Order: sequence, then C-alpha cells, then structure tokens
Amino acid sequence: MVVDTLPPPEPKQGQALVKVLACGICGSDLHAAKHAHRMVAVTRRIPGRVPMDLSRDVVMGHEFCCEVIDYGANTEKKLKPGTRVCAMPVMLEADGPKGMGYSNTYVGGYAEQMLLSAPLMLEVPNGLPTEHAALTEPLAVGVHAVEKALLKGDEAPLVVGCGPVGLAVIAALRLKNVRPIVAADFSPKRRELAVKMGADIVVDPAKEDLYRHLGSDKKAAIFECVGVPGIIQQILEKAPRDARVVVVGVCMEPDTIEPMFGIVKELSLQFVLGYTPEEFARSLRLLAEGEVDAAALITGKVGLDGVKGAFAELGNPERHTKILVEPWR
Amino acid sequence: MVVDTLPPPEPKQGQALVKVLACGICGSDLHAAKHAHRMVAVTRRIPGRVPMDLSRDVVMGHEFCCEVIDYGANTEKKLKPGTRVCAMPVMLEADGPKGMGYSNTYVGGYAEQMLLSAPLMLEVPNGLPTEHAALTEPLAVGVHAVEKALLKGDEAPLVVGCGPVGLAVIAALRLKNVRPIVAADFSPKRRELAVKMGADIVVDPAKEDLYRHLGSDKKAAIFECVGVPGIIQQILEKAPRDARVVVVGVCMEPDTIEPMFGIVKELSLQFVLGYTPEEFARSLRLLAEGEVDAAALITGKVGLDGVKGAFAELGNPERHTKILVEPWR
Repeated sequence: MVVDTLPPPEPKQGQALVKVLACGICGSDLHAAKHAHRMVAVTRRIPGRVPMDLSRDVVMGHEFCCEVIDYGANTEKKLKPGTRVCAMPVMLEADGPKGMGYSNTYVGGYAEQMLLSAPLMLEVPNGLPTEHAALTEPLAVGVHAVEKALLKGDEAPLVVGCGPVGLAVIAALRLKNVRPIVAADFSPKRRELAVKMGADIVVDPAKEDLYRHLGSDKKAAIFECVGVPGIIQQILEKAPRDARVVVVGVCMEPDTIEPMFGIVKELSLQFVLGYTPEEFARSLRLLAEGEVDAAALITGKVGLDGVKGAFAELGNPERHTKILVEPWR
Repeated sequence: MVVDTLPPPEPKQGQALVKVLACGICGSDLHAAKHAHRMVAVTRRIPGRVPMDLSRDVVMGHEFCCEVIDYGANTEKKLKPGTRVCAMPVMLEADGPKGMGYSNTYVGGYAEQMLLSAPLMLEVPNGLPTEHAALTEPLAVGVHAVEKALLKGDEAPLVVGCGPVGLAVIAALRLKNVRPIVAADFSPKRRELAVKMGADIVVDPAKEDLYRHLGSDKKAAIFECVGVPGIIQQILEKAPRDARVVVVGVCMEPDTIEPMFGIVKELSLQFVLGYTPEEFARSLRLLAEGEVDAAALITGKVGLDGVKGAFAELGNPERHTKILVEPWR
C-alpha cells in the first residue's frame, strides 16, 4: 500500500469528476489488503466478473461523499459544481455497470479526485455533515440485509457480530421496529455501540448463550455479520427450528457446514450483497433525517498518509469502528 | 442386518397393532445401514433428539401401508380391524412425538407387525393398491419440499438428482404446473422415470450443462435431491442470480461450501425435512386419485429374507428405484 500520484481522471460522457471529501474504510478493504490474491481467485470463477489485475494500480474506497468539480462532454449538469454528492460505487457503461474500489479502471475514494456516474449521484441534503453522508453506503448494506429477511414484524431478530455491518443491520432493524433486537459481540465497545444503534439486549458470547434470549414464541431472524469460516456452522447448530439466517458477513474462504443441522430444523440461509438504488437513496435520506445516530460509528479520520496506519488500527474493535479517509487533508 | 423374532408388540392406550402389508426401502435406510454410527453422532448433537442405541435392536422402515389388527385399551376403534391404513412414522406420546424406524422403542415397517398412533392412521381409499399406498411417505417428502419452495408459479424449476426423492419432487412440481421442469441425473433409467413423473427436459450432467436450460427470464428454483458432500457447492457455483435452492437431499456428513458464490448471486438455501400431517394426507389422496403415476417407481418386492439383498441391489440406479418389503411373504 503506497501513496502515489496518478494522472488526474478525465470524465467522459455521462461521468462527473468529483473531489473526495470523505471515504470510509470498509472491512472488505482490510480483507482485500491482506488477501487480494484470494479475492482475485474467487472472482475469476464467477461468470461475468472481472477480477483486479494485481500487477496494476488499484485505488480502493467505496464509501464516499464527494463534491462535484466538473462533468464530461455532452453530460447533463444536473448538480452544480460545488454540490456535495453520494453515489453507489458503480460506473454505468454501455455493456453494464462496472465496480469501483476493486478496479484497475476506476479509482475508488482513497484518492483526491475520482469519477462518478452522473446519473447515480445523489445530492447530500443541506445540513447533513459530510462525514455522516459517507456512511450512506455501509448503512445501505444493513438496510438491504433487513429487506432480504422479508420480516413480517413478529420475528425475533438476532445480530451476530457488531462490526460496521452488524451495527448497520441493528439500525435498520430498529427503523422497522422489529424488537427486541438481540445483538452479540465479544467486544464491550462494540456492544456499547450496538445499544446506541438500537439493540435492546446485548450479549457477550464468551459468557452467555445468546440463543437463550430468542424465546420460543417467535420465529428467529438471525443476521450473520461476522464473515469468517465456522460462523455459519455455529449458527446452524444453535439456531432454533424454522429460523431464517441472513448471511451478511462476507466470508471469502471455503467454509465447512454440517447440512444435517439445517435439515432437521428446516433452517433457511439467505446470502445477501450490496443494496438496490432505492435502498441506497433511502439510507442517505435516513441519515439526513437523523433517523440513525451515525456520529457514534466514526472513531477516526486520517489523510492519505494515514490510510496504512488506519488499516492496522482497525484490527482493534475497542478503539475503532469506522475510520474516514479525508484525502484533502 | 439379521432376520430374527421379537416379542409381539403390545398396543397401549392410543395405539393400534397393525400388520405390515408393504414398506418401502428409503435411501436414508441405506445410509443408516452403512453409517449408523455417524447418524447417531450427529443426532446426539441435536437438542431434543434421542439417538438410537446401536447395541440394541433397531427395526427400520418408515414408508408403510398396514392393516389394522387391534387397538390398545381405552382407544377409540375408529377404523375396523382389516382396514388398510397409512400413517406418518411417528408415535404420539404425552411428552411429544417419537420417531419410528430409527428407534429402539418402536419397530419400523420391516416387521410383520408394528404399532401405530391410532389418531394418525389414515384409511387407504378403496381401490388404491397397497403397494401404491406405501408410496405416500416418499411422495409427501416431495410435496413438502415443493411447498417450502414458496413458488409463485413463474419460477424455472430444476431438479438435481432423480432418485426417489427427486422423482417425488418432480411429481409435486407437475401437480403445481410449474413448468418446464428440468431434471438431471447421470442414470438413463432415472431420466426415463423423471419423464414419466412429469419432467419436461431431462439432462445427463456428464454430457451437458443443465443450467443452460434455465433461461434467464425466470427466477430459478433448484431442488437438491442428491444429499452427498459437494453437491451444495456445485449448485452455489452454477446457480443463476437470485436462485432459491431447496435442499431435500439428506447429507449427513460435513460439507464444504464457498459462501462467496452464494453472496455475489444472493442465493438462498432452504433446508427441508419431512412433511406436515396435511401434506401427508394430501399425498395419499393424490395417489388414490391417480394424480401421480406411482407404479413406475416400484421396481421390486421382497420378503424379510430379501431385505439384505435389496439393500445391496438398490445401489444400481439402472435396476432399481423403490423396492417394497412385504414381511408376510
């Protein structure tokens, strides 16, 4: 990981050149920094996905809030230069959307300037601090996961893991008012944040069986927000009958399960990823309306020189939850 | 596996003594005969389940059609002695239902006589041959799996594996008229039976990519009816985006998956087991009404002396699908 100078990006038709104001560091970025080769190997096996070429530059960062500088030729200038914007980290192209942040083509938000798809840009409502707007993307992940759980409102939700993903899920559950929300994490600090985001009961899984809080009168909706090998099997073993398990954590390695535990209890697993454009826009609105206490999640801010150190720091859940990169610093 | 004489079972209150007319050999029985210790080890880890004690006798068989002989004391004799009946293979007891067929307490259908829960007995409609009535249980497994798929009618169904479970799923799909039904099996004989049960397209996965038949305009509903390690991962790799995978095959061993394939395509896995009393009763009715061509599935009949040989024979999918044990032979 190096800080270096690249030629300034040039917006084409349909694109905007923007200045990055803030960009959150995501757990997937930490994973990519350590296991990029593994990520490439898996991506290569998924039809229609183009993996990064690790011999070329990659600028990560996909949780950004930016300021419009200019537009490409023949592009509707809907939002004036100087407007603050958020956008889904994808570039619309003639042959389909292309990802940003794990790409050799489009730089992500750990850069002073980047390109955005002009039609995807959403104006940050006046009064919403930039640093909160930068949380739109991680919040959208939680909002989407809860949507995919197809809750009817009478389920017992259980959130396993209270990192940024779990915390976003808790916030989204609270907005749906599906309660009591039980949340589990080994870290006291993370449990404290879980309560701030709306958890009703927090559990230290080292000390207590979290499943005993589920009760037996409601169907369990379990959100796996850890994403390391072994967690899915742990849930299959412990989940009550008919539970719906939403896998939000991104485990990029092979994982061993014993299907028998899923079978005898007729469990279901719903794997989820990302969000819809509507969910992304809704997440920005929720932050702007103060429906989610975003400030609590931000535990640090660094310039480009501090990114490397921040990646190391994020390993400590007691100290850090979300660190924002401010490339203009 | 031995043929031996046990003391005749004595019906208690709520129970009926019945003569077994026919009992199908299930794939789970084949598995239990080979890997009973493994089955016990897994069962021991599932709360509320009591594993078989392998040092004591176990009489298997849970797909039976019987004839009422007598009732326990103080039991309503709703169906006269001589009446042919089917029943779910569970015994109702004060502290909850107990399984039959993998139990030290209740003998299964590979016996001349057994006990049934009187309230669970369903009269075989007049005119339905006994051997077809004995297929109620395996058909119910398919009916249940299709119910749990929550089909809306516009899905593209794909059945992976055309053993008795896969064939029952095909029959149930056909009854729901969710088509075209694509079914895959390495065995030509099994593919032939799949067509008889209602498959529209059959595929030899050794020669052809079965997923190319799914088209892209409908959501895929994939029924895993094989139940050996590796199959779930194969499906995760090949399934199209948003597919719903219903795991009907019973894999009793640890299995390795790569969650990433489920994640990027937002797949869901629904594990299923058994059936509801309503689904069981419906399956008997469907057979009685000739809605399912059951005769094609029965490829052999043996007496008690032939059970051991039948277990060996069932390894050959070209020769056998369902062998019925007729203990009175």
